[in-house]
Amino acid sequence: MKKKETYNIAIIGATGVVGREMIEILEERQFPVNELRLLASEKSVGQKISFKGKSLTVGLAEEKSFEGMDMVMGDTPTEVSKMFAPMVKKAGAVFIDCSSAFRADPKIPLVVPEVNGEAALAHDGIVAGPNCSAIPVAVAAKPIHKKYGIKRMVVSTYQSASGAGKGGMDELAAQTVALLNSKEIPLKVFAHRLAFNVIPQIDAFLPNGDTKEEDKIMKELRKLLNAPELALACTAVRVPVMCGHSATVNIELEKKASAQEISLLLEKAPGIVIRDDMAKKQYPMPMDIAGTDEVYVGRIREDHSIPNGINLWVCADNLRKGASLNAIQIAEYLIKNPS
Amino acid sequence: MKKKETYNIAIIGATGVVGREMIEILEERQFPVNELRLLASEKSVGQKISFKGKSLTVGLAEEKSFEGMDMVMGDTPTEVSKMFAPMVKKAGAVFIDCSSAFRADPKIPLVVPEVNGEAALAHDGIVAGPNCSAIPVAVAAKPIHKKYGIKRMVVSTYQSASGAGKGGMDELAAQTVALLNSKEIPLKVFAHRLAFNVIPQIDAFLPNGDTKEEDKIMKELRKLLNAPELALACTAVRVPVMCGHSATVNIELEKKASAQEISLLLEKAPGIVIRDDMAKKQYPMPMDIAGTDEVYVGRIREDHSIPNGINLWVCADNLRKGASLNAIQIAEYLIKNPS
Repeated sequence: MKKKETYNIAIIGATGVVGREMIEILEERQFPVNELRLLASEKSVGQKISFKGKSLTVGLAEEKSFEGMDMVMGDTPTEVSKMFAPMVKKAGAVFIDCSSAFRADPKIPLVVPEVNGEAALAHDGIVAGPNCSAIPVAVAAKPIHKKYGIKRMVVSTYQSASGAGKGGMDELAAQTVALLNSKEIPLKVFAHRLAFNVIPQIDAFLPNGDTKEEDKIMKELRKLLNAPELALACTAVRVPVMCGHSATVNIELEKKASAQEISLLLEKAPGIVIRDDMAKKQYPMPMDIAGTDEVYVGRIREDHSIPNGINLWVCADNLRKGASLNAIQIAEYLIKNPS
Repeated sequence: MKKKETYNIAIIGATGVVGREMIEILEERQFPVNELRLLASEKSVGQKISFKGKSLTVGLAEEKSFEGMDMVMGDTPTEVSKMFAPMVKKAGAVFIDCSSAFRADPKIPLVVPEVNGEAALAHDGIVAGPNCSAIPVAVAAKPIHKKYGIKRMVVSTYQSASGAGKGGMDELAAQTVALLNSKEIPLKVFAHRLAFNVIPQIDAFLPNGDTKEEDKIMKELRKLLNAPELALACTAVRVPVMCGHSATVNIELEKKASAQEISLLLEKAPGIVIRDDMAKKQYPMPMDIAGTDEVYVGRIREDHSIPNGINLWVCADNLRKGASLNAIQIAEYLIKNPS
């Protein structure tokens, strides 16, 4: 990214739940925006969204929409990202894509700025943002891996409805109301009822029995931590929470560390807040962290079932740190390190 | 237990959510009951509960209530169980206690009939039923441990509100309604809001950072599997589900087993139903298994992050198999194996 005073930014999927968060966060963080161009598919064209006191009109995302843009961000379906990526590159803009379209491509950097920001600088027009459950685990694991070496992690997730977008949140709300009123349960976004239930499947199944979500979390963690052989097991579960993904993370370290050493290390690490006070019953919970920017870590305990074991409980706002905020932090990293 | 045609049974805490399930299950399973005596604390005395078409009146639980009884069952608070245990013994009855009062006592058998039924026969007047999250994991782990040897398990739970009794379910319902109507959230049973949230704390904290719940699950699994040195890590989490506890179970085996071998083994094991059809999106979920008797296992996958790794997803009705049904199955085991 060349150095400029302000930048022209386009958001595709601007009316989606992550798109809207991006617009808010650009304003909140006083991102140096010159022009903000809001783009979406035909059905959302003409919607008005406010930005810095002005009402912006959503336009159609198409080839010519990217002309003159410095950066284009979005969290659109994979096939939409794949369609627009060459158009964004052709227009000379950098595409910061939250979808899974390019994450596994070894030529495309997969970036969480606190974890591997420098990787973003090697982009060739596309930077991918990781899966919303991989991000918080990577932020918590990075300083631990750097100092003590991680041999293996076992991750179980507690992922909220908003991981499936606005439709997921609406469906959880509608199901809850329907259930309380003994009405028929709407089922469109989720394969099963989510209200007052947990669903041990996110995304489709792969032949080996893992879901694509579990596969993405494991592969992306390895790429983010630059540890291609890292031993990982993962089970991804949807829980009836509106916003905020949580995970239990059981870690086997190369070198011994006490719970206190891990706690002190993470306290100083970028993008992490420790919430871990047993006496006050304080630990990260989705209800407290929705709308925040950091990755919250608590329940830091030694696991004596292996020589160097540590348990963590990790929680983050999946719409912000898990997608929109992370994309904007990538943009900030690019403009702070001009080419 | 001496052989008889029918038995006199008392239930303490008969008006509680587990007590009521016990009464229903005795009827459902045509347990050979002569007299059924329903007992509770003063505030519930006089309540009427139907059993086999008759209306029974709840009496006061006190020393003399146990006279003439063959077996006394209950899921009362620990201190209540401790108070009544000597009175039940003095009356010559066997106390089948679902509380945690006696579970850790090496002289008192801790029993899940499918796992270690024979241990119940060595009782000296008390048989303890395990924690509602330990039971399903033990039922699934037992045949695996017997055939392949379990070196280590990492367990993360997804425990429902009913694990905290009727008050827990009422609070989750009231919180949900309050939240949907923007009213004040009632907080009495749980330390934090549970509706649309997850709480990574069940029971009080121990100095080492584990909760008592996590400690109980690990210690009871070791006792049930007769594996005092079994390596275990556990994180217990409350989720906004009314009934049905779930858990991810990551297992390191001594001997190699394929996912298919584990599946075939568990299919034939007592008390287990396999629900594991990726094409049909079938796996155990609380909404499907509430009201059932078995332990449901699905998401059976090999975990290649260790030499002999297996992942399971386990789900059971915590009120039935996790407490009431298990107690009655212990009673059935005792009468089928008379002394």
